[in-house]
Amino acid sequence: MTVNHQLPTTKNERVEEVFDLFIKHMQEFFEEAKLNHEEYTNFVNWADRLGRSGELPLYADVFLETHVLQAMYTELPGTQPSLLGPYYVENAPFLEPDENGVVELTQREDEEGELFYFSGTVKNVDGEILKNAEVDFWQNDASAKYSNFDSDAPDFNLRGRFITDDEGRFTVKTFIPVPYSIPDQGPTGEFLGYMDQHPMRPAHLHIMFKSEGHETLITQVFFEGDEWMETDVAQGVRDELITDPVDKGDYKESHLEFVLRKEN
Amino acid sequence: MTVNHQLPTTKNERVEEVFDLFIKHMQEFFEEAKLNHEEYTNFVNWADRLGRSGELPLYADVFLETHVLQAMYTELPGTQPSLLGPYYVENAPFLEPDENGVVELTQREDEEGELFYFSGTVKNVDGEILKNAEVDFWQNDASAKYSNFDSDAPDFNLRGRFITDDEGRFTVKTFIPVPYSIPDQGPTGEFLGYMDQHPMRPAHLHIMFKSEGHETLITQVFFEGDEWMETDVAQGVRDELITDPVDKGDYKESHLEFVLRKEN
Repeated sequence: MTVNHQLPTTKNERVEEVFDLFIKHMQEFFEEAKLNHEEYTNFVNWADRLGRSGELPLYADVFLETHVLQAMYTELPGTQPSLLGPYYVENAPFLEPDENGVVELTQREDEEGELFYFSGTVKNVDGEILKNAEVDFWQNDASAKYSNFDSDAPDFNLRGRFITDDEGRFTVKTFIPVPYSIPDQGPTGEFLGYMDQHPMRPAHLHIMFKSEGHETLITQVFFEGDEWMETDVAQGVRDELITDPVDKGDYKESHLEFVLRKEN
Repeated sequence: MTVNHQLPTTKNERVEEVFDLFIKHMQEFFEEAKLNHEEYTNFVNWADRLGRSGELPLYADVFLETHVLQAMYTELPGTQPSLLGPYYVENAPFLEPDENGVVELTQREDEEGELFYFSGTVKNVDGEILKNAEVDFWQNDASAKYSNFDSDAPDFNLRGRFITDDEGRFTVKTFIPVPYSIPDQGPTGEFLGYMDQHPMRPAHLHIMFKSEGHETLITQVFFEGDEWMETDVAQGVRDELITDPVDKGDYKESHLEFVLRKEN
């Protein structure tokens, strides 16, 4: 009996083009690496462990996404994007600023860490102020945890959406984020061991900006002097995304400008 | 609190070299494919489904392994290898030939299919006969199933190990294998749909040869006239691996020569 399944037709020229390129570059990898059969089997077994563990998106986000972004944007004007990462949660609550225009991000009265006022101005590449732009913000806390992910914090703690004011500005009252380790006990950690690469990311804020008529900007903000800046496991740092907060005694503060690209 | 794991030292220069090349070629893929962020996310989600389903080794064996082998061996003298595939089982029983030197592969009196006597001569690249070479043989049955894998057949049916005689020959009494479909209901099938590629492999025998002082040869034997020969989903066919059995009425028979490379 000859088994002959007819697959549903899902042919899609863009998908086919992408898969052709994927196979082509994987072949080039195998040709250049000149794996013997045992090395090939070891490599496939590692990839199988990675896949079954569910860590494949983590691995891709940390080791590949940043290169996708650099390939897409490095030549263009406007703020450089950085990786979305695995800790983004959609539909964060909309937060109202207080009478001074400050959005408070913590939901906890005893939130630990260094108090931090971070403000930004949102413009486009033509220098126009973008008011009513949506800012979607997330970061970790002093215990290096993101809310909604294996954390004791309330859901959406240190996360929130809000809009820029008439000057295109926003200000958040939050806490300085801390460096953290990506998960390193599974196949991704095994890879790091082979590469002699530590699993740390420098402290960072995540921000996504949306403004009608403009490309969505997904980026991160880093902190001057962070010991992991040069060796970020995810290679997500861009010079223009580094901020250097001023110490005001009871708190720190800093400001950055973000520049969105216009939609084609 | 800064989390700072110290990973165990597993640094291995060959492994690091291979992973560096893997990352380099994946980056080149992303650069050439110019995926936008949505396409990147779709691609990673497909790879995640592939990995979680446990189909990653299947995918690698079918779409990548053959290129590993071609890169390693195409320029060399000796019989071309073909893919090991996912249906190999180690430690098949050793089978004794009958008084005519014929090894019977089926364990079933009512095995279905076309009776087939297949013989081979094993030599090395210097033309020397290799006696006492180990032959490890596996194939599917008339229902397109491999024993030990979701099959009603006894374990190791149509599988076995035996040795070449003083003329470097072996003969098996078996049944002509049949074309079959690789698993096509999961993420690998999804990929095939995008590529407009059927999931069929032409009928084939699997044989692994081991002889002291020689490289292990893993290869496959195909059948002249098979409708899937030109479009084998795994691209495993090599011209020199095609046999053309002679019809003897009650049975078919054919013979091939296999040439092993000497170990360096």
